[in-house]
Amino acid sequence: MQLRAVGVVKSSLKEPSLVAESGDLEWRPKEGRREWRIRVSELIIDSNFAGILDGIEDFSHLLVLYWAHLVPPEGRSIIKAHPMGRKELPLVGIFATCSPARPNTICAIVVRLLEHKENVLKVEGLDALDGSPIVDIKPYIPSYYRADNIKMADWMLQIEREFAKGLIAE
Amino acid sequence: MQLRAVGVVKSSLKEPSLVAESGDLEWRPKEGRREWRIRVSELIIDSNFAGILDGIEDFSHLLVLYWAHLVPPEGRSIIKAHPMGRKELPLVGIFATCSPARPNTICAIVVRLLEHKENVLKVEGLDALDGSPIVDIKPYIPSYYRADNIKMADWMLQIEREFAKGLIAE
Repeated sequence: MQLRAVGVVKSSLKEPSLVAESGDLEWRPKEGRREWRIRVSELIIDSNFAGILDGIEDFSHLLVLYWAHLVPPEGRSIIKAHPMGRKELPLVGIFATCSPARPNTICAIVVRLLEHKENVLKVEGLDALDGSPIVDIKPYIPSYYRADNIKMADWMLQIEREFAKGLIAE
Repeated sequence: MQLRAVGVVKSSLKEPSLVAESGDLEWRPKEGRREWRIRVSELIIDSNFAGILDGIEDFSHLLVLYWAHLVPPEGRSIIKAHPMGRKELPLVGIFATCSPARPNTICAIVVRLLEHKENVLKVEGLDALDGSPIVDIKPYIPSYYRADNIKMADWMLQIEREFAKGLIAE
């Protein structure tokens, strides 16, 4: 299963906050999540895919898959970790976390489409670093991606509350 | 960017409905979407990733990335298509569609987690065919994957209505 980059992310976000080193995760905040949720980035599609975005402007939201290119090879071998590298949070399997360091370093996030001009999409809410290879772009279809009556782990709720209160990285 | 399969899908769904052949899409329904939304499938994780699911049972929903392994190599070169192969619908770029035939044949879908036992997850709502290689599993976090005030293309709304009314493939 070989991926090809279909384009590249252009963003003011240059350095990762979550770093995978020596088999564990470490949080080195550069900014808060509140900031990335309103950040405007560009998705620049390679010219050999000309036309592949046609009609995408009829959708308000997209699911973007990108490659977390700064995760070192050893980051793909991490099986369990403390979320955000915080030792007071439970040690859980990587598939229970949002860590970019995972067996396949693909990140997925929903963004709002602001503008489509030729091979460039301007989007809001992308957390990808500048230079991230784009793997895929899909229209946001609620029946595929929206879930209600969600339950999340206590530690994730705690992290969400801390971000919301600005206690983390702002 | 090389992917490794982390496991495999076990499902009663054996054949694709949407087939990519000779540079276009064709719809060969085997069943309706109403059926796959209540279908129970299993995600069987390889034993060399033991522990990677620990704690995942604290989440009610997951985002699953899987490889659409039955898309032929030429399906990855399709740039534009009529959605579901229906010529009366507009010809749009592949990134405006949910076609599994796309430059990187990764599908993403949100499922409900029913059960976690060792290396097996039982989930509801997976549209993957039996034998699909699993690429990634992530916890469903509303702030990443949930969007409100959605706008979709007219042709997509039409397809959604037809599925809902049972006019397609049921």
